[in-house]
Amino acid sequence: MHDFSLWAPRPTKVAIRVGDQTYAMQGPDRDGLWKASVEAPTGTEYGFLLDDDPVVYPDPRSLLQPRGVHGPSVLYDHRDFQWDDSTWQGPPFGGAVVYELHIGTFTAEGTFDAALARLPYLFDLGITHVGLMPVAEFPGDCGWGYDGVDLFAVSHRYGGPDGLKRFVNSCHVHGLAVILDVVYNHFGPVGNYTAKFGPYVTDRHHTPWGDAINFEDSGSDQVRQFFFDNATMWMRDFHIDGLRLDAIHEIVDRSAVHFLEQLAANVDNLSSTLGRRLVLIAESDLNNPQIVKPIEAGGFGMDAQWSDDFHHSLFTLLHVDERGKGYYDDFGEFECLAKSLKEMFVYDGIYSSYRNRRHGRPVDGLSAHHFIGFIQNHDQVGNRATGDRLEHIVGMARTKVALAIVLTAPFVPMLFQGEEFAASTPFLYFANHEDPEMARLVAEGRKREFAAFGWDEAQLSNPEDYETFQRSQLNWADLNQAKHAEMLDWTKRLIHLRRNSISLNDGDRGHVKVSFSDEQHWLRMDRGQVNIFANLGDAPASFEADADQHIVLASDNATLAEGMVVVPANSIAILSSELQ
Amino acid sequence: MHDFSLWAPRPTKVAIRVGDQTYAMQGPDRDGLWKASVEAPTGTEYGFLLDDDPVVYPDPRSLLQPRGVHGPSVLYDHRDFQWDDSTWQGPPFGGAVVYELHIGTFTAEGTFDAALARLPYLFDLGITHVGLMPVAEFPGDCGWGYDGVDLFAVSHRYGGPDGLKRFVNSCHVHGLAVILDVVYNHFGPVGNYTAKFGPYVTDRHHTPWGDAINFEDSGSDQVRQFFFDNATMWMRDFHIDGLRLDAIHEIVDRSAVHFLEQLAANVDNLSSTLGRRLVLIAESDLNNPQIVKPIEAGGFGMDAQWSDDFHHSLFTLLHVDERGKGYYDDFGEFECLAKSLKEMFVYDGIYSSYRNRRHGRPVDGLSAHHFIGFIQNHDQVGNRATGDRLEHIVGMARTKVALAIVLTAPFVPMLFQGEEFAASTPFLYFANHEDPEMARLVAEGRKREFAAFGWDEAQLSNPEDYETFQRSQLNWADLNQAKHAEMLDWTKRLIHLRRNSISLNDGDRGHVKVSFSDEQHWLRMDRGQVNIFANLGDAPASFEADADQHIVLASDNATLAEGMVVVPANSIAILSSELQ
Repeated sequence: MHDFSLWAPRPTKVAIRVGDQTYAMQGPDRDGLWKASVEAPTGTEYGFLLDDDPVVYPDPRSLLQPRGVHGPSVLYDHRDFQWDDSTWQGPPFGGAVVYELHIGTFTAEGTFDAALARLPYLFDLGITHVGLMPVAEFPGDCGWGYDGVDLFAVSHRYGGPDGLKRFVNSCHVHGLAVILDVVYNHFGPVGNYTAKFGPYVTDRHHTPWGDAINFEDSGSDQVRQFFFDNATMWMRDFHIDGLRLDAIHEIVDRSAVHFLEQLAANVDNLSSTLGRRLVLIAESDLNNPQIVKPIEAGGFGMDAQWSDDFHHSLFTLLHVDERGKGYYDDFGEFECLAKSLKEMFVYDGIYSSYRNRRHGRPVDGLSAHHFIGFIQNHDQVGNRATGDRLEHIVGMARTKVALAIVLTAPFVPMLFQGEEFAASTPFLYFANHEDPEMARLVAEGRKREFAAFGWDEAQLSNPEDYETFQRSQLNWADLNQAKHAEMLDWTKRLIHLRRNSISLNDGDRGHVKVSFSDEQHWLRMDRGQVNIFANLGDAPASFEADADQHIVLASDNATLAEGMVVVPANSIAILSSELQ
Repeated sequence: MHDFSLWAPRPTKVAIRVGDQTYAMQGPDRDGLWKASVEAPTGTEYGFLLDDDPVVYPDPRSLLQPRGVHGPSVLYDHRDFQWDDSTWQGPPFGGAVVYELHIGTFTAEGTFDAALARLPYLFDLGITHVGLMPVAEFPGDCGWGYDGVDLFAVSHRYGGPDGLKRFVNSCHVHGLAVILDVVYNHFGPVGNYTAKFGPYVTDRHHTPWGDAINFEDSGSDQVRQFFFDNATMWMRDFHIDGLRLDAIHEIVDRSAVHFLEQLAANVDNLSSTLGRRLVLIAESDLNNPQIVKPIEAGGFGMDAQWSDDFHHSLFTLLHVDERGKGYYDDFGEFECLAKSLKEMFVYDGIYSSYRNRRHGRPVDGLSAHHFIGFIQNHDQVGNRATGDRLEHIVGMARTKVALAIVLTAPFVPMLFQGEEFAASTPFLYFANHEDPEMARLVAEGRKREFAAFGWDEAQLSNPEDYETFQRSQLNWADLNQAKHAEMLDWTKRLIHLRRNSISLNDGDRGHVKVSFSDEQHWLRMDRGQVNIFANLGDAPASFEADADQHIVLASDNATLAEGMVVVPANSIAILSSELQ
C-alpha cells in the first residue's frame, strides 16, 4: 500500500487516479491535507482529480514526470539507489572553485550520464564544486530550467532522479561537491497547476515573471514547507551539497521570520543531521549584506551570494564598447573594479543611474568568501543577443587577464562551462514553451531588454528553435586546437595557483590592497604574499615589485629585473614570495 | 521673490500659476526638479500646470490648502510663528502615559484652538504625551485623517498650520509632548494628484488601500526624501515630539536600507540637531521585534510599536461574547493575557488560526518600553459597528479592571480620548469622500469586514452622514455626572500611581511575574514592589500578599488581613510596599 498525501485546501473534493482506477481521498484535515492508501508499486502512474474538473492533474510534489509537465506523475522510491559516498563530508566553501554547467548543453547527449564521463576532466582542472543549472521538470524539449513547474521531479530529458543520483554519486567519488540551482521565486508559466490545489502564489506582489510565491499570507506555512521540503529532498535524498537560490530579491516576505532565514536554519540543522557540509548561495540583486550575514547577527544566514558588481566592473573595462548601455551604465572605471575587489559591492548606498535611485549598503565585517565572483556565467553569456562568450568579444589576451583576476580575487571564483578552454560555441537563450503565445511574449520581452544594450533584434536567435539549443552545446573537439588547449592550460595553472596559496584563500577583505590607474589602464592587487599586476593598456606597464617575489604566472612575457616588473600590454603577471 | 521647486519627472513641460499669472518652470534637472523664481508673498495662491493638461494642480508639498484638497495651494512661511518653548526637551518615552485624540471630535468646535483649552485638564490627569490622529489635509468635511493627500498641509478645518503650532506650543508650555499620527503607506483615494508628477506609487506591491508607495523602484530616492522631509517638517517646524507611523506593514521595501531604518537614523540626527527627544512609534501587524530593535542590532530603530496582542488578549477576557470572531479567534485565554504582559507578542511564531499561518517572532532582549499597550484606541472603538466604547460593552466594573491593568502593565500605556471618564458618546467611523462611488465602496468594505464579527449591517451608521461625525464628538457635560466623575477619579489615581512608582516604570520584562487561573478568572501580576490582583470571576478571589504590602488602590472593597488579600468579583486591587 502506498500512502498518498496531498495539500489541497482549495477543492472541496479530491480523488486520486492510480493506473486506471480512481479512489476518493479523505480530507481535508485542518491543514488542508488529503489522504488515501492505495496499492501502488514504484513506477505506477497517478494523478489527482479536483472537484468536478475532468482533468487528471500531476502531483505538485511529483518525483518523476516521464511524459513531461502535463503528463502523469510516477511513483518513485528514493531508497532504491545505492550510494558509494558514505565518507563524503563536502569541502569547505571558502576554498571553492565553482564550475557552472547546464546538463542539456554540457555534452552532445545532454544527460547526466554523459556529463559524468567528464568528471575526471573537471577534477583535473582543479574544480571543487560543480554548479548545476536547474534540473526540475520544465516544459518542452529544452530550456535553461528557470521555468520549472514540478519542483520535486528531475527532468526526464536529463535522465530523471536516478540520472541525477548517478551524477552526484560520481561527483562525490571524484571529490567534487555539487551545487544545484533552484527557483523559489516563481513557477514557470506553462504546466503550472499549483493554483488548482492551494494558495501557492499571491497577487499582493508581482515579479517580472508573474505573481509572487505566497510566503506570507494565509496558507503560507504549507507553501514555505513545500520549499523547505524541496531543499531537504535535494540535500538528503540526492546528496546535493548546496543550493543556488535564483533571484532571491523576488522572494517578497514580510513575515517576522523571513523564508530565507528559516531555510538557512533548517539547512543548518540538516547539515548536523547528515554530517555533511551544506551551503546556500543566493542570487541577489539587492546589494544587501543582510542576505549573507549570520542569523545570529540579524542576517538571513546565506553562505554566499553572487557578485554582479564585480562582473560589470570588470566587463566594462574589458569591453569598452558596452559602457553606458543598460546596467553597464553604472560601471566603466578602474575605481569600480578596485572597489568590487575590496568592498564587494560597488553600489553600497551610492546613486545608480541605471536604477535611478541609491542602491545597496556597505559590506561590513564579512569575509569575501560570502561572495562569488565570475566574468562569465549562464546569464552574462546567455543573456547577450548572440550568446557570445568573453573570448569572442575581447579576444584571448584580455580573456586571460580577466580569468586571472577572477581566480586571484578574494571572493570565491566561478567559471561557466567551456570558459576554461574559451569554447568556440555560444551559449544562447533557448526555451520550448509548447505555447505559441508564450513564445511570442518571451521573444518580445527579450527584444525590449536587449534594446537597452543597443543590440539589433535581427541578431537574435529564436529561443524556440531547437537549433538554438543545439548550437549552445559545447564542442569538446575544441580541445584539439592549440588556442583552446592554451586557454585550458592557463586556467589550470591559475586554479592550481589559487588552490595551493594560503594568501589567495584568505577571505579577509582587510588584507586586500588595490591600486590602479584609469589613465594607464592597470590595476594592482596585493593579497598577502601574492601580488597581481593587470595591464589592460596598449603599452607595457612597470611596477615596483615587493622584495623576495618572483613571477609565478604571466599571460605574456612579463619580466622582473632590479625590483621592477614589466607587464606587456593586455596581459597579467602574478608575483609571489609564497610559492616555488 | 519666492523660489518655487517641484519634483516632477513625469511631465515634459511644467508651468506655475501664481495668483492669476502663469510662468514657465525651468527643468527638469537630472533629479527631475523644476524651478521658478516668482514674486509671491506669503498667502499667495499657486498651483502647477503639467504638459498640456488645463487643470491647475495643487503642490504635493503644499503647506496650506484653505479650500481643500482640490483647491489651490497657498504660500506659508514657517518663520512667522513665535514659539514659547525654547527650553522644551521632551520627556523620556519610557515613562510616558499617552492620550490619543482626534481634533475633530475632541471638542464640539473640532479645532486645535478649542482643544488647547483642555490641556490643563490633560496635564492634571497625568498625561505626558498627546497623540494626535492625522492632521494632514484630507477630502471632505470630516474624517479620521488616514485618507490624507496633502501630507505637508495641516487641515484647514482644524485650524491649519498656525492652529497646530498654537496647539503644540501650548502643550509644551503645559509640559505635554505631542505625537502626531502620519500615514506613509498610501495616499488617500480622493484628491491624490501625485501620480501626475512622479512615481510616488508602484504597482509591484498592493496594499488594502491601493498601490503601495514606491520606496524601492526607479525614482524612489525622491519619494523617500518626500517622506523624510515630511517627518523633519513636523519635528522641526511644528515642534512635534514624535510620529506614530500608520500600518508600517504596508510599507514594502526591499532596499538594502529599509525606509524605516533610514527614517530612524535621520530622526536621530535631527534629535541631536534640535536638542529635543524625538520618538518614532510604529503601528505594526508583523509581530516582528526587528521593527523596534536598535539599528546597531540589525533593527529598524523604531522607539516603540503598538501591541494589538495585548488588546485582543484582554478584550476577549472582558467580553466573552466576541471570542472566536474575526481576529479575536486567536485569543480568549488568561494565558494569552499573561503572555502579552510578559512577552509582548502572544503570536511569537505560533500558529494563528485567524491568519491561517504561523505568525511573529519572540521579543528577545528588548525592554517592554518598546511597546504601547491599550484597551481602547481609535481603531478598537471606531472600527466596531456602533463605535461603542468598552464601558458601553462590559460596564464600569470591568472597564476599571481593564484600565488598571493597562496602567500597571510593563509597556507604555495609552488611553483614547474620553476613556478616562468612560465617555457616553460613541466613536464611529466617519468620512466624507465627496465621491458617491468611493463612499459606496468604503461602506461595502466595512460591511464585509464587520460580517466576520457577526455584526448586523443594520447597526451600521453611514460614515458619510455628517451626523455620524457629530455623534462621535465628546460630550464634556458627561463630567457633571457621578459615574463619569468616578471613572475620571479612578483613571487619575491609576496614572498618579504609575507615574510615582519606580516598580511600575521598570521596563525589564524579566522582572514581571504573572500567574493566573482560567477556571477562576483571575490574574496576578507582580512588578517588583507592586503587585496587581485582577479578578474577572463572579466570586471573590483570595491571594497571598507579600509581606509589608498594603492596598494602594482597589476598584471595589478589597481587604487585606493576615497576609491574605480578598478581591471582590469583577474588581482589581493593587498592593505595594513601595508607596505610602
